[in-house]
Amino acid sequence: MAVPLSTYPRRLLPLFLGLFQAALLLFFALFVTYDEPSALVKDTNSVANQVYSTFPFFQDIQMMLVVGLGLLLTFLPRYGFSALTHNFLLLNFSMQWALVLQGLLHHFHHGQIHLDLHKLLISEFAAVTVLISVGAILGRASPCQLLVMATCEIPIYVASEWVIVTCLGVLDVGGTITIHVFSCYFGLGVSKALFRATQQPPHPKETPTPHSDLMSLVGTLILWVFWPSFVAVLCQPGDAQHRAILNTLLAISASAITTVVASSLLERDGKLSPGHLQNSSLAGGVAIGVVADMAMPPAAALALGSLSAVVCVLGFRFLTPLLGRKLTLHDQCGIHNLHGLPGILGAAASIVAVLVASKDTSGSHPSQPSLVGGNASEVVEGQWGDRGVGGQALCQAAGLAVAVGASLLAGLLTGAALRLPCLARPPERLCFDDSLYFKIQDQAESPGPDSSAEEGALALKE
Amino acid sequence: MAVPLSTYPRRLLPLFLGLFQAALLLFFALFVTYDEPSALVKDTNSVANQVYSTFPFFQDIQMMLVVGLGLLLTFLPRYGFSALTHNFLLLNFSMQWALVLQGLLHHFHHGQIHLDLHKLLISEFAAVTVLISVGAILGRASPCQLLVMATCEIPIYVASEWVIVTCLGVLDVGGTITIHVFSCYFGLGVSKALFRATQQPPHPKETPTPHSDLMSLVGTLILWVFWPSFVAVLCQPGDAQHRAILNTLLAISASAITTVVASSLLERDGKLSPGHLQNSSLAGGVAIGVVADMAMPPAAALALGSLSAVVCVLGFRFLTPLLGRKLTLHDQCGIHNLHGLPGILGAAASIVAVLVASKDTSGSHPSQPSLVGGNASEVVEGQWGDRGVGGQALCQAAGLAVAVGASLLAGLLTGAALRLPCLARPPERLCFDDSLYFKIQDQAESPGPDSSAEEGALALKE
Amino acid sequence: MAVPLSTYPRRLLPLFLGLFQAALLLFFALFVTYDEPSALVKDTNSVANQVYSTFPFFQDIQMMLVVGLGLLLTFLPRYGFSALTHNFLLLNFSMQWALVLQGLLHHFHHGQIHLDLHKLLISEFAAVTVLISVGAILGRASPCQLLVMATCEIPIYVASEWVIVTCLGVLDVGGTITIHVFSCYFGLGVSKALFRATQQPPHPKETPTPHSDLMSLVGTLILWVFWPSFVAVLCQPGDAQHRAILNTLLAISASAITTVVASSLLERDGKLSPGHLQNSSLAGGVAIGVVADMAMPPAAALALGSLSAVVCVLGFRFLTPLLGRKLTLHDQCGIHNLHGLPGILGAAASIVAVLVASKDTSGSHPSQPSLVGGNASEVVEGQWGDRGVGGQALCQAAGLAVAVGASLLAGLLTGAALRLPCLARPPERLCFDDSLYFKIQDQAESPGPDSSAEEGALALKE
Repeated sequence: MAVPLSTYPRRLLPLFLGLFQAALLLFFALFVTYDEPSALVKDTNSVANQVYSTFPFFQDIQMMLVVGLGLLLTFLPRYGFSALTHNFLLLNFSMQWALVLQGLLHHFHHGQIHLDLHKLLISEFAAVTVLISVGAILGRASPCQLLVMATCEIPIYVASEWVIVTCLGVLDVGGTITIHVFSCYFGLGVSKALFRATQQPPHPKETPTPHSDLMSLVGTLILWVFWPSFVAVLCQPGDAQHRAILNTLLAISASAITTVVASSLLERDGKLSPGHLQNSSLAGGVAIGVVADMAMPPAAALALGSLSAVVCVLGFRFLTPLLGRKLTLHDQCGIHNLHGLPGILGAAASIVAVLVASKDTSGSHPSQPSLVGGNASEVVEGQWGDRGVGGQALCQAAGLAVAVGASLLAGLLTGAALRLPCLARPPERLCFDDSLYFKIQDQAESPGPDSSAEEGALALKE
Repeated sequence: MAVPLSTYPRRLLPLFLGLFQAALLLFFALFVTYDEPSALVKDTNSVANQVYSTFPFFQDIQMMLVVGLGLLLTFLPRYGFSALTHNFLLLNFSMQWALVLQGLLHHFHHGQIHLDLHKLLISEFAAVTVLISVGAILGRASPCQLLVMATCEIPIYVASEWVIVTCLGVLDVGGTITIHVFSCYFGLGVSKALFRATQQPPHPKETPTPHSDLMSLVGTLILWVFWPSFVAVLCQPGDAQHRAILNTLLAISASAITTVVASSLLERDGKLSPGHLQNSSLAGGVAIGVVADMAMPPAAALALGSLSAVVCVLGFRFLTPLLGRKLTLHDQCGIHNLHGLPGILGAAASIVAVLVASKDTSGSHPSQPSLVGGNASEVVEGQWGDRGVGGQALCQAAGLAVAVGASLLAGLLTGAALRLPCLARPPERLCFDDSLYFKIQDQAESPGPDSSAEEGALALKE
Repeated sequence: MAVPLSTYPRRLLPLFLGLFQAALLLFFALFVTYDEPSALVKDTNSVANQVYSTFPFFQDIQMMLVVGLGLLLTFLPRYGFSALTHNFLLLNFSMQWALVLQGLLHHFHHGQIHLDLHKLLISEFAAVTVLISVGAILGRASPCQLLVMATCEIPIYVASEWVIVTCLGVLDVGGTITIHVFSCYFGLGVSKALFRATQQPPHPKETPTPHSDLMSLVGTLILWVFWPSFVAVLCQPGDAQHRAILNTLLAISASAITTVVASSLLERDGKLSPGHLQNSSLAGGVAIGVVADMAMPPAAALALGSLSAVVCVLGFRFLTPLLGRKLTLHDQCGIHNLHGLPGILGAAASIVAVLVASKDTSGSHPSQPSLVGGNASEVVEGQWGDRGVGGQALCQAAGLAVAVGASLLAGLLTGAALRLPCLARPPERLCFDDSLYFKIQDQAESPGPDSSAEEGALALKE
């Protein structure tokens, strides 16, 4: 047991989590109820229909976040169990925490919050921000640090989402700006403030093995399969949702092909990089979220998917090393390439889509009721209200600015807080190692009572 | 090939299975038909709606049982292929066998059984009992023993479920009592009678490797994601089903967090045990089944989920070793901790829920039509008929007693039958080894014609 | 880096793929649009219902093809990353290519193709043919060869499907003849023409390890779980779809059990072969597709499932070695056993079903409106039009003949084209190796800058 117990406050994690779960229980007991059972048969049908229309999407998204994203993070060969477990723990913690905050902010009526599947889904979306941000510091932070980060990030996300969607009226049905861009720059801010100017040296345990690369790719494929559900679940049922599904399918399909092209062209010997495939194949899904339900031609979805993949691969190849050297900015999973750059690209596309769509409306299709189906389906004329086309385009840009600015600032402050010694960042030589947090058998040969992990050359054998 | 062929009657398995499949085919040819095609358009719509409302749940459950549960059992590093295959084989065998028995008992009209998706689903639920019970003896029993166990367990389950649900009128929409408690004590009974007083020594091949622990955790996560479908599929559509989904989500979410707290507190060095995570995260799902569609506050679902996880972790830490020492009771996968204890907790919670709910009805909410939506949705007044509140509470307790008693007794008898020498329990040194049943390459280095497995130190290398 | 760069034109792959993606983008920009947004609330409901009824099936099928089939192909232990990636790339490439061709052939009106989820689904079905055919030459062909094969196979599939379904009126709702039989003989034709008379020697890297066998079995199980969605998605909603789901479930369940029986009986020591389990468990799903929605008794589905599994296991045991020796026909994954033989069996069953069903109709059930629900649900009398029963039976046979003949011929021509030196078939010693195409760390021990793979004994260690 090479870990000096004295430096790691093992009791902090259960204490923190236990108190949180108890407080949440109290909050639920006092304020949260289900809707009254509906008395009429008609209502039963409508509740049933709501369940049948939302629940399959919800399950797809759970599969993405719990299994798909978890497996994607297992590319670190000796940190797979931690990556899966921390992802799972943070999802549950953040979801419950967001349920409280979103309930208080949006759904608190007569001293009660009425829980339903839609509210759980919204809080799950909030939790996604934490799971993404973690990617910047994966493997070098303790579980306590991750939980404190989640505790800080959720209220800031809820506030930022309120500003962007409710105040600014930004259209962003798939969470490109509110979730992906926000969580990326929050994570980068945390990483910068946590590691400061010390460049993180390459760690012997962070090199993927063929097997960990394979498992990670399986995670990517699960995310890829269910991505359309993530983008389309909050769309207006009918045409807008149908279009969002199709646009997402086209975008991620184009990303998959373009990733192979770009990755192969960038290397002298033409070999593909596993990391590019694991990430860039999904870049189109990130970018398309903000325009998925808008009236844009299918070709635009293909183009956006291709472009996102190119940007993502270029980011991995050139930008990440550059940021590491010039800004000593550490980004373990390359979240800036998968969530930041494609997110900004998507936001730019949404500005173009708003400007172009308005021209079409004022043109030859006067009978078309709504070009943007998602959040504004009932508005027939002057679909962006008093604001006008230019105003809406400006709002999209403002939303992007708020997402980047607020998240960077808040991330830097959060990262500074994570430097508190009591949160026990693991020493460098113990990073990327499951045996620091789990009773994992390091050497399968000796199953005796002496099951403690021995650090050494043998440990790398698996 | 160290296995003495003479001691293992290799032809018994295909003979038994082949005869079963032929007999089933005959039975189907004589008695089983589909419903007449519906003649009216209206019926077509209603059939279509039934398919669309049930089929996604059905697929989720298939994914749980075939992939999720199968992977969960691969924690035995050299027995993964057997665990996956035996789980898959037993599911199919038990499902077909239950289809026959349940058809004869419940659906035999005018010499025919009309097959539909709902009946397949019900027989799949029956098969779950076998898959759970196997956990007690996993790795130390031959496939023939497992099939004989399934052959015995299914009729006993069908009878016990008929007594508990139809005769006693126990409310148990998620199968907590009828499936989880029943199968747990059946499995423990089998284990006790099969292994008798000989304590099973720790086997060198049963220690998980980091990789087998990871695969097993992926299985847990798949089960966790789809658990709400399992609990809610048989609920009354509408409010009851909606509430069952929400209650299950809250319970398993609380279980996930509480597992980390409890596992971390129990160990001196604060490291989490993979086994706890793989099992206790699901404990809330087991317990919530019996009350999921009842009118209870969301906080109660959270509390039940937390409590189940605590009970499950404590069971792994203290009760399983104790039962092993005092009663020489062998429980390979800890099914008593995951299915037995949380099941009993859930049954107790259902008694409380029935008593509390009745007070609410007689009190200030006279307009509420039904507090228990699941099995009794049409009863408006005196919802438990002549039986009254106390009667219903008593029935829940009686159902639990029947489930525990009948399954223990039947399990002991079945386990005694499994000692028949012709069923060929593998000798101790060949337990937990895929190469006893499968043509698995043990040493990848020599792919020549001599592909037989060599027992020895090298074999542990993987 | 043992690969001589001069022999492998690394720039061909990105060039080919990049040009394809650009051309597709242009095609989409010129000709492909979404449907006009529907103006009426009623239409919104109907679009929403269409989404809710098709989308869950669509996601199941994506999961099958991307994750399930991908994992099934990872049985080659050092080629898993390539198998997953090439499967994923070919799916996307073929789907987009089929979208163009099917759009031009079937959906080109007034210079436009209106894209919807159904058309994407149809093009996904076309892509399946490529994914199956690849199985014949997996591991011994370069990505460029696979892409050229896909480029040739898709137009031939589209033409052949048009002849079989539209011209001949063959009933084949699950694609048994049009997809499985077609792609099998296409793949075998390619293999024969590509490898000619040189028998492929056993390669040291093609022997599965216990772990690669396990991953492959997980792929099988995912395919098995979602197979009913694949067969039933294109059925007439209502009874026909319900029946298709049930028939498929019965057939694959019988296959699972019969596979164990047959595999165990064929070996002297009674041990099961992983390859049999990975493939034959699915054989019933292949065979049932062509009759799944027909009015046949449930026992027939069970019988067909059992028989398919027997045929598939016998094929692996006897036919594949025989074809290898006598015809020097190389079939890496045994697609002839899983797709060819069960497909022919299914086609034969459809002839019987047509003949038998007609007797029933003219007999004692005059009120039955339609015995074949799938493609002909509205025809009450003389359900196969002027053609009569014998005519329809003949058509099914003719469809099978077209599928086998056209695909074999086209496959031979395509295989000859793949011999072009510029497509760079890998030399024998570099086959089945991820490190030829991917920057995969072969030895995890040295994560330094020298990350190139070294061929040698050590490389087999993982």
